[in-house]
Amino acid sequence: MPQDTQTNRRIVLAERPAGLPDDDTLRMEEGPVPEAGPGEMLLRTVWLSLDPYMRGRMNDAKSYAEPVAIGGVMTGQVVAEVVASDIAGFAPGDHVLAGSGWQDYAVSDGTQVLNLGPSPEHPSWALGILGMPGYTAHAGLLRIGEPKAGETVVVAAASGPVGATVGQIAKIKGCRVVGVAGGPEKCAHVVDNLGFDACIDHCADDFEAQLKAACPDGIDVYFENVGGRVLYAVLPLLNPFARIPVCGMVAWYNLTGLPDGPDRGPQILGTLLRMKVKMEGFIIFDSFPREAQEEFRHDMTDWLEKGLIQYREQVVEGLEAAPGALVDLLQGRNFGKMVVRVG
Amino acid sequence: MPQDTQTNRRIVLAERPAGLPDDDTLRMEEGPVPEAGPGEMLLRTVWLSLDPYMRGRMNDAKSYAEPVAIGGVMTGQVVAEVVASDIAGFAPGDHVLAGSGWQDYAVSDGTQVLNLGPSPEHPSWALGILGMPGYTAHAGLLRIGEPKAGETVVVAAASGPVGATVGQIAKIKGCRVVGVAGGPEKCAHVVDNLGFDACIDHCADDFEAQLKAACPDGIDVYFENVGGRVLYAVLPLLNPFARIPVCGMVAWYNLTGLPDGPDRGPQILGTLLRMKVKMEGFIIFDSFPREAQEEFRHDMTDWLEKGLIQYREQVVEGLEAAPGALVDLLQGRNFGKMVVRVG
Repeated sequence: MPQDTQTNRRIVLAERPAGLPDDDTLRMEEGPVPEAGPGEMLLRTVWLSLDPYMRGRMNDAKSYAEPVAIGGVMTGQVVAEVVASDIAGFAPGDHVLAGSGWQDYAVSDGTQVLNLGPSPEHPSWALGILGMPGYTAHAGLLRIGEPKAGETVVVAAASGPVGATVGQIAKIKGCRVVGVAGGPEKCAHVVDNLGFDACIDHCADDFEAQLKAACPDGIDVYFENVGGRVLYAVLPLLNPFARIPVCGMVAWYNLTGLPDGPDRGPQILGTLLRMKVKMEGFIIFDSFPREAQEEFRHDMTDWLEKGLIQYREQVVEGLEAAPGALVDLLQGRNFGKMVVRVG
Repeated sequence: MPQDTQTNRRIVLAERPAGLPDDDTLRMEEGPVPEAGPGEMLLRTVWLSLDPYMRGRMNDAKSYAEPVAIGGVMTGQVVAEVVASDIAGFAPGDHVLAGSGWQDYAVSDGTQVLNLGPSPEHPSWALGILGMPGYTAHAGLLRIGEPKAGETVVVAAASGPVGATVGQIAKIKGCRVVGVAGGPEKCAHVVDNLGFDACIDHCADDFEAQLKAACPDGIDVYFENVGGRVLYAVLPLLNPFARIPVCGMVAWYNLTGLPDGPDRGPQILGTLLRMKVKMEGFIIFDSFPREAQEEFRHDMTDWLEKGLIQYREQVVEGLEAAPGALVDLLQGRNFGKMVVRVG
């Protein structure tokens, strides 16, 4: 059931999941392709981004963004092609970055839509290394983590699109970089292709001891993407004045309640206090000033041109495969930035 | 057994306590008064400060300061009188602020000793509002908490020397200030004498509901002194971009291991992430630049002269009463800044 020109397939939130999403969480619906009115344009989705934050939007909880409504189209960033346009600056054939979600077609008034031009070299990169994940890595590491040459930076989810970029930027800045990833294949990729100094498999029985051995001078920056066992292994290794940008906690996204004890609260607070550690959560959309994004675009374009940053995508074929791929992603079964080729 | 001119009473660490210190933790010893040699001075302790951090120094744990050795004099700041001096700038009769610990007499080479002059107006204030606790409050609130007029600031241990000062500074800065303290007497003092907008008793069964009702616009700054139940009640009330200076966690200082679950780690990290919260531990001795202390002295002297800051001391009589008083302090049974009149 591929994309066609008559039908708009939409994947909507059928019910809020308890824990990991399952077959009842999302539902595909079909309808006619919508029509663009005056001052609007019709977009055809080409690439859909899959990201861990999507699990949070399925919850009806106080957060930085509105939850997806029951029956509403799942939220998501896409690269789309303009089919028809009544907006100056957007012409048929242009590729755009938009937030139109998990569907084949969408009508837009152009708000928060970025024109990538008629033939961008790597259209899907706007969803990854040149988009939100890349910007998240750049601003979170440099503006909160503030790594200095010679320091040790530990990066959780090191083979993921954010973590891989964080570690490579830290290498550019002259740091010792230790990744944490799930399984030997990912760890080998992180060291061999991305150039990290070491990468520890968090599934290993002796993960804590291996991490300690890989950080003989302690840890100055921990880029937090996962929470759980990795965080608790990092805490005892932190140096005075360490910084922890909190970007995600994917190990805990599917919790239905607080996990069993012991309560690590005293360990977390005690480490912050004794070691004078800063821990700061951030959301890329509103945590940084405007110039942060310009700085990111400038740096990343330069580094990609010079071959200093490697970037890996995992391509999922077809909109209908997106729900299962998101479950894989939430369980760490992706390898690189997950994008869905929709049309 | 008062102070005399022949004997030096010293309170030493007899053994490391598990949990709250008890009768076996500290021991009083007597010896001759030491003699000051060339380039030294002899100090007679007049006031000894009691502070929650002292519990941490009894542990043999990785921390910002060396632990007290077994058999070593308990660490502590004192106001002392110079008995004899071979150091330029220190004359007999001068009062000084020194770190000579829980004993009647000490010899000093003048390192890290501040001369308060021959007759300071309030000698013991150098241990409190004009000393470490006052500076802790000032720098921690203003440099990490960064309160803005109109914001809501919640202060744990609000009747203690740090908390009371934090709240009064936040009032000067135009904030709504809500204290948390133990018992109705302390809460009444915090509102009636210190001018906080409200103060909630953390012993109340419905503490969480009372705190929420007292913070109708959420919480922008939480000055953390205690951890435990107060922290967990604050987390759901934090506003986006809230700041948490972590100054202490007295509710957890006597833990002998991590407490039973559930594990609040996911709640702490999740709140930081969703609400873009900054949580930063600090130690007053090395977290701030030199100008922070000058700014503190300037502001606090000005505010005290103008009557904008109220300050309460609880005076303990005699060095021999110090161990029991520290246990009271660690259980929140003090009321104001605890100082021991030694001689």
